[in-house]
Amino acid sequence: MTSNSVKELLSKNLIVQEVVVNGWVKSFRSNRFIALNDGSTLANIQCVVDFEKLDEHVLKQIHTGAALKVSGTLVESQGSGQSVEIQVKDIFVHGGANPDTYPIQPKKHSLEFLREKAHLRIRTNTFAAIMRVRSALSFAIHQYFTENGFYYFHSPIITGSDAEGAGEMFRVTTLEGKNPPLNEDGSINFKEDFFGKETNLTVSGQLEAEAYAMALGKVYTFGPTFRAENSNTSRHLAEFWMVEPEVAFNDLDDNMDLAEDFIKKVVQYILQHCGEDLQFLEKRLLDEEKSKPQAERSAMPLIEKLKFVAENTFQRVTYTEAIEILRNSKPNKKKKFQYIIDEWGADLQSEHERYLVEKHFKCPVILFDYPAKIKAFYMRLNEDGKTVRAMDILFPGIGEIVGGSQREERLEVLKEKMAALNIPEEELWWYLDLRKFGSAVHSGFGLGFERLVLFATGMGNIRDVIPFPRTPQNAEF
Amino acid sequence: MTSNSVKELLSKNLIVQEVVVNGWVKSFRSNRFIALNDGSTLANIQCVVDFEKLDEHVLKQIHTGAALKVSGTLVESQGSGQSVEIQVKDIFVHGGANPDTYPIQPKKHSLEFLREKAHLRIRTNTFAAIMRVRSALSFAIHQYFTENGFYYFHSPIITGSDAEGAGEMFRVTTLEGKNPPLNEDGSINFKEDFFGKETNLTVSGQLEAEAYAMALGKVYTFGPTFRAENSNTSRHLAEFWMVEPEVAFNDLDDNMDLAEDFIKKVVQYILQHCGEDLQFLEKRLLDEEKSKPQAERSAMPLIEKLKFVAENTFQRVTYTEAIEILRNSKPNKKKKFQYIIDEWGADLQSEHERYLVEKHFKCPVILFDYPAKIKAFYMRLNEDGKTVRAMDILFPGIGEIVGGSQREERLEVLKEKMAALNIPEEELWWYLDLRKFGSAVHSGFGLGFERLVLFATGMGNIRDVIPFPRTPQNAEF
Repeated sequence: MTSNSVKELLSKNLIVQEVVVNGWVKSFRSNRFIALNDGSTLANIQCVVDFEKLDEHVLKQIHTGAALKVSGTLVESQGSGQSVEIQVKDIFVHGGANPDTYPIQPKKHSLEFLREKAHLRIRTNTFAAIMRVRSALSFAIHQYFTENGFYYFHSPIITGSDAEGAGEMFRVTTLEGKNPPLNEDGSINFKEDFFGKETNLTVSGQLEAEAYAMALGKVYTFGPTFRAENSNTSRHLAEFWMVEPEVAFNDLDDNMDLAEDFIKKVVQYILQHCGEDLQFLEKRLLDEEKSKPQAERSAMPLIEKLKFVAENTFQRVTYTEAIEILRNSKPNKKKKFQYIIDEWGADLQSEHERYLVEKHFKCPVILFDYPAKIKAFYMRLNEDGKTVRAMDILFPGIGEIVGGSQREERLEVLKEKMAALNIPEEELWWYLDLRKFGSAVHSGFGLGFERLVLFATGMGNIRDVIPFPRTPQNAEF
Repeated sequence: MTSNSVKELLSKNLIVQEVVVNGWVKSFRSNRFIALNDGSTLANIQCVVDFEKLDEHVLKQIHTGAALKVSGTLVESQGSGQSVEIQVKDIFVHGGANPDTYPIQPKKHSLEFLREKAHLRIRTNTFAAIMRVRSALSFAIHQYFTENGFYYFHSPIITGSDAEGAGEMFRVTTLEGKNPPLNEDGSINFKEDFFGKETNLTVSGQLEAEAYAMALGKVYTFGPTFRAENSNTSRHLAEFWMVEPEVAFNDLDDNMDLAEDFIKKVVQYILQHCGEDLQFLEKRLLDEEKSKPQAERSAMPLIEKLKFVAENTFQRVTYTEAIEILRNSKPNKKKKFQYIIDEWGADLQSEHERYLVEKHFKCPVILFDYPAKIKAFYMRLNEDGKTVRAMDILFPGIGEIVGGSQREERLEVLKEKMAALNIPEEELWWYLDLRKFGSAVHSGFGLGFERLVLFATGMGNIRDVIPFPRTPQNAEF
């Protein structure tokens, strides 16, 4: 007999029906009520057993975490809290879970404790909810771009170029680690390495995405990117997923429109598809924040916050305007900022971004037209000669969630920028080709996917929103 | 004025309307007809200019590859071959393309020539069509799994485990290449490496996917995987994308059902959504094969082949049956096979797989229940003690496109298998945990995404179906 998922059983409202369901025991109380979950949804199906009729050997194996196949009759529930339940006829134990050694017991475990058990933490309601939301966000991203005429493009992970300068990179090699082959001058002979040159893990697929946008028009990447930075913070991972759309003929205004519409639509998608999980995560956050002082609690409950983002226009502000606001702000005048803003050109710190988003505008903010000298070489220079067509989207509680720009499409200007930064043209000959042949205005942005998942789930540590986090000194599993 | 994509202009059938379109010149003939393409679709929009009214400076820049913004009136086409065309009022040249140096001219370029120009080859009809089909297949995969209750799971790319033994691995490191820190015994001190241990690029997300399936029920990965094998063939890449579903409570029969249904549905998706590109690729293949002897040509045109796969049942055959067929086959008896099949237990070579698929069954074949000794340690041992619940799907012209199995869910059997292969239990403590706590029958498979794209596009070399291929001695771009 075919089995049904818990989600199907709970949603069908079919009364009196012979069913089979597989899942794991969440709890077993009074030798009578098994709460069974199979991951298809947050809710459990209640399985009611008559312990006097059940084989004692089976009964003894029904503990939290055990995998069961339950056969019985789906009936209207007698108790409160669920619409239907199963009157159990038969139970097959796929595999037990010794309560003395199984770490995931029906009690509160700290997130730190669960991080050490990343292979089992997915069996908790919290992590199952997070990862279902993460999966829904991923699909929403693919659906959004597909519906809007974008092509998904797989940018290379191993790269021979280190010109982008977005951060420290991991070397990828098959050379013998201890005695690598050397050149006559004593340097490593990378010609003998797998790719015949020094290679690294990518920090961004943008440059390659530009090549594809200049032919397919609208493309996006969604893949892993890497930073070998020794940052042990709640916001940084060594391996994370990034979404990078790139659009030919889009200027910075189009780019901001795209980013704002994109974020709103994917947030709407999870509001529509992940209601139960979001309610659970909202409650989790409220519970967690009970012990915090009022000032540190979230301004809005999770779902209200998501709706707020989905429904309200993001505030667009130039860097120059932002500097004026910050310069005249109370914390700046009272020297409460760690970094006092006193002149144009200063790089904004997280404290400044938070002030703008959380105190001044109280909504997502798009900052644009940054000073050229604090931004990357490929961003398009404005006519003023000192700012570039860059934009960052800042989110409450998260900080920068999107960074993007209109790209410099003029060959000579780009060459000057590269020369000033000592980026050799030979390194990026192919990137320069895009400006030699059929060049055009184009723009794109990068969205740190885990930061979006943090925002969507209300979690506080980025290690808790990716299945197996990679951080300094940690690549377990 | 907002611009439209070429796809929109061609599909709308709106007659007499002021339009703006951006794109690249495919060809310009008789100083009058510009074929403009923006990547949104294979077809071009014809733009008709009155060269006597056009600025001479603009006219001189209209060459193949130039990026233009064209404004004009959309009218019913006078010529044949297109339904509508633009009567041009104005042209803005975003960027020219010097015909003396631009490599992508409107003539036939060899695939080898284009491989050296991976950043520009996407501007040819062939590569644009391939990559649009690739993108559509990607979306079809995400949609199939989402609609069938699977959760997308991002398996880690950097891994501290090398126990799976699926192939040679790339080392990931931040240690100084020439003088790495050493332990007292002279070995490399990996404690000083970024992750505090030796790390590699993943060869498969399966083991981690199993952990997630044992909580979320149905999961899949779709991400990059790596092999550091010095294979310079038309079927191998050092970096490629793999799809790996994993399902709790599925046995091998369920697994074969899933794989067959999955492949059929994603093929149906591109038949529905990529008609124009597939027709183009079918014609390309026919042209290419004209110069080949009849015996080496494809048995069916591309689209017929895709429909055949989508509509016909895959032949399921045990390894044991396959060996019998091969042993009694003509090429075996006449010693035409390079590797003669004379006894049970032999590993099948590509020549044998091709015989089964292309000569004997003439359809996709699922081989299952392989000898344990030629398959991986985690595959479930059958009651006969000598075969495992493994399955491979073999496709005409491609060979193995899917490899999967029911996983060994019994702790003691798994431990014995690991011991026999000298895989230390400490390496996979967490994988063993899945068998200690709530273990159950489960199954999954891996599909090499580029092999599916090869099949779907009729291309012959795997380097031509991924944007920037990574192969031995090649990590350009």
